[in-house]
Amino acid sequence: MIGYSPNPAEAVKALKATAITEIADSPVQVVRQCDLIILATPPKATLDLLQTLAPLVGREAILTDVCSVKAPIMRQALGCGLGDQFAGAHPLAGTHESGFVAARPDRLRGCVVYICETGSLAGHRAAAAVAGFWEEILGASPIRIDPEAHDRQLAWTSHLPQASAYVLAKVLSSQGLGGVSFGSGARDTMRLAASSPDLWVEVLSQNVKPVSTALEQTQEALAELRMLLSQGDEAGLRNYLTTAHGFRRGIER
Amino acid sequence: MIGYSPNPAEAVKALKATAITEIADSPVQVVRQCDLIILATPPKATLDLLQTLAPLVGREAILTDVCSVKAPIMRQALGCGLGDQFAGAHPLAGTHESGFVAARPDRLRGCVVYICETGSLAGHRAAAAVAGFWEEILGASPIRIDPEAHDRQLAWTSHLPQASAYVLAKVLSSQGLGGVSFGSGARDTMRLAASSPDLWVEVLSQNVKPVSTALEQTQEALAELRMLLSQGDEAGLRNYLTTAHGFRRGIER
Repeated sequence: MIGYSPNPAEAVKALKATAITEIADSPVQVVRQCDLIILATPPKATLDLLQTLAPLVGREAILTDVCSVKAPIMRQALGCGLGDQFAGAHPLAGTHESGFVAARPDRLRGCVVYICETGSLAGHRAAAAVAGFWEEILGASPIRIDPEAHDRQLAWTSHLPQASAYVLAKVLSSQGLGGVSFGSGARDTMRLAASSPDLWVEVLSQNVKPVSTALEQTQEALAELRMLLSQGDEAGLRNYLTTAHGFRRGIER
Repeated sequence: MIGYSPNPAEAVKALKATAITEIADSPVQVVRQCDLIILATPPKATLDLLQTLAPLVGREAILTDVCSVKAPIMRQALGCGLGDQFAGAHPLAGTHESGFVAARPDRLRGCVVYICETGSLAGHRAAAAVAGFWEEILGASPIRIDPEAHDRQLAWTSHLPQASAYVLAKVLSSQGLGGVSFGSGARDTMRLAASSPDLWVEVLSQNVKPVSTALEQTQEALAELRMLLSQGDEAGLRNYLTTAHGFRRGIER
């Protein structure tokens, strides 16, 4: 198990924890000898790596990724001639943390991992191999999904909550309020804003249309709440909060 | 320590846990013999109880509350002739849960508790007694604050995060997405929407103006994010997310 990180200290941590058995000096150097190549990088680096590595990988190698957007990745894999060797993956296991220190195998156990196929028969076999890796080695639950459908769904289930946390933190950042003023509820509501801005600039930028639709509907829902409040419509306000409450209770694990 | 709950099963739980030593059939019945009367009820019930209990309490008794809005409560206490016996309190220790089962003394240890005074000298002494109770018995950190300033601040630090969680859950409730589609980040961002709608109709309705201001600025921040996305302004988007990220990291405990 050969690992590479642009940050050598990260690779050393992985080696010390026996998560890998060898550190590569560059992905280019080692990719030809690999059977399964996992690109666990942000969207832009993944797009670049697919292009760089495509001419170097063995014909039997399978490649996969873990990005939160899938349509641009699948297009790139096809464009690079990896249609028979690539399958996209997206485990629903991210947090606001990053780096090897945030790696926790138990997060992957039982988690949904979306799998996207390129469309060819060999691509189908590659997807089966990637799904098998997630299911048998990591204990996750693979679910096949169309890349465009994935990106539309994730705009709601992940990118919108992420954006909401950023919006809330952005608004509060201008109020000059100290940390001691915030309770655990407020902290949790904004927790995702502690995620890497670099990563999220890329994810949001790669999924503009679906995310914009979700943000637009959120603006409308916010306007509705303001209206109910300003009109003193307590019955309407109760309906609004009760709908939200019922939904949130309904998705409790 | 006499307890009363409109839900008798709650009072029995408190008695069994030795949080109280006696259950009252009604607050009216026992209030005259109490030295310290804590109204741990939502805003409307607190306003009603102040009116009901004011003519019944002993002249040496001290009353207090735990509401998330303070100006209407302080006005009511003064209006009921309790200016020399009442001090408002608001511990920053709430969660989305309610009922005796959600009571945890460790949440109160070290937590900020805002204390509001009525303005009279005796009211000042009442506030000192209430603050002493929170500090010495419960281990919390009392902070004196003007009621209007409290409500303006809490509109940002608590009522806005609460409203944001409700808005997000309201938007997502119409998308027909199952619980399995949501990761822990999305769940946490909406966790406050699991709070009691009845309580929050009251809190938001008692703090309309400051909450409306906060919601208006949130709408503007949301519009700004949409604009940056639709214009493909990655530098602007990075600035936006970095500001939010820095703020959220800065309030980490």
